[in-house]
Amino acid sequence: MSFDPQEIAELAAFAEHLADAARSQTLPHFRDRAAVTDKEGPVFDPVTDADRNAERKIRTLIEAAYPGHAILGEEFGEKKGQGPWRWVIDPIDGTRAFVCGAPTWVTLIALEHDGAPVLGLIDQPYTDERWVGQKGAVFQRGKTSVACRVSGVTDLGRARLSTTDPRAAGGYFSDAEAGAFARLCEKTQVQRFSLDAYAYALLALGELDLVAETTLQRHDYAALIPVIEGAGGVVTNWRGAPVGSDGRGEILAAATPELHEAAMGVLKA
Amino acid sequence: MSFDPQEIAELAAFAEHLADAARSQTLPHFRDRAAVTDKEGPVFDPVTDADRNAERKIRTLIEAAYPGHAILGEEFGEKKGQGPWRWVIDPIDGTRAFVCGAPTWVTLIALEHDGAPVLGLIDQPYTDERWVGQKGAVFQRGKTSVACRVSGVTDLGRARLSTTDPRAAGGYFSDAEAGAFARLCEKTQVQRFSLDAYAYALLALGELDLVAETTLQRHDYAALIPVIEGAGGVVTNWRGAPVGSDGRGEILAAATPELHEAAMGVLKA
Repeated sequence: MSFDPQEIAELAAFAEHLADAARSQTLPHFRDRAAVTDKEGPVFDPVTDADRNAERKIRTLIEAAYPGHAILGEEFGEKKGQGPWRWVIDPIDGTRAFVCGAPTWVTLIALEHDGAPVLGLIDQPYTDERWVGQKGAVFQRGKTSVACRVSGVTDLGRARLSTTDPRAAGGYFSDAEAGAFARLCEKTQVQRFSLDAYAYALLALGELDLVAETTLQRHDYAALIPVIEGAGGVVTNWRGAPVGSDGRGEILAAATPELHEAAMGVLKA
Repeated sequence: MSFDPQEIAELAAFAEHLADAARSQTLPHFRDRAAVTDKEGPVFDPVTDADRNAERKIRTLIEAAYPGHAILGEEFGEKKGQGPWRWVIDPIDGTRAFVCGAPTWVTLIALEHDGAPVLGLIDQPYTDERWVGQKGAVFQRGKTSVACRVSGVTDLGRARLSTTDPRAAGGYFSDAEAGAFARLCEKTQVQRFSLDAYAYALLALGELDLVAETTLQRHDYAALIPVIEGAGGVVTNWRGAPVGSDGRGEILAAATPELHEAAMGVLKA
């Protein structure tokens, strides 16, 4: 990838502006018992007004500032652009957390250059937490800003593991995936569920060591990659290939290459 | 229960003082990668220095202010008292959340009068959230204070359900309990996991509608009852008897009597 360092710095500042704008659309609806509507389809997937309004706001700002940039958003699909830049947006990742009042939903904003995510932003408005990945990764809360660094955990037996839903029935896993994940649970020290993208943000802070999921779409993972890699972590699909290169939306994020390798071994066993 | 309203108001203010003191011991250790030690026993149960120091601090304050009050704490057991009052303390409920960096662990402080919990306090220091139940229930964040009110959901099909871990292996449920809970999952609209006592606090806010767990001990649930009931909710064991009256530490909290009844029917089916 070749691009002007000043250009990417400017785009990173713009991404923060987008996240601020999204906050104005999401936070007022959090815990206000706003009406929730279901998307069509077999899986329950709540979408609030907040979700749609935040994406509209973000798209409007991008179109005004960078009319040539492409946009891919969870709610309103793809807008073609000219040139190498594409924004990938999930206004509310963790809509189930949102409708249950849990402060672990996030806004995800990624910027791709020729198809590769080069900038990722994860924002939690209620807790005022923001992660920005671009080369390194930074965690901001209020006036505090610190570099993100994954843990040094290399052994499965010491690893803190997360996935959004460990179940096959009612969750995201196939029976085989749920079985593979259950093997990983047996080998690891502690497991936490229902964190959605917030889990990867905790991994970047060194608080979780492993996250394994499937059925993720581009808007779910594009913003995560620069944050995880910027914090020194490893992220691929379950077989070590790039995320998005399989048909199952697999993701396996780990604090260290050793832990990543060990987890892959258990998942494919 | 008969006690002086002014006395309970004074004790409620004192409970808030205890929660403030606990914050000074817990919050500085959250996400600081402090060493974690395991309790003995088959289940992984991390206990941080924060946990022990917070309980020491709370006990010291109670002993100084109310030397005749009994104290039951998760970390340091029971201190007998004289008279009707007993404090029941869990300095960090959700130690797994704590060691994984998730902002959903809480400090639980209950006050019992002749064995009945009459005051309950749930405190989340990182998000600056506090629930106080005594007759009614109040939610405080920063300078904002609002009355808690459960949702009006009466149908299982519209209910948002939570439990800390839905699994039998690796979780808290027996195989039979995991099966019963899975039936409840099938009937409800959305499920969230890994929230520990924070789930009951969300129920009191009207954000969750049902929480079902087992293996809870007195320090896990005593503080929850005044908050849930103060917000208008229903809380019993899985058969409608008082929490703590079975040998399994069952708890079933619901927004409405109708939902509670329906959930009991599914759990015992």
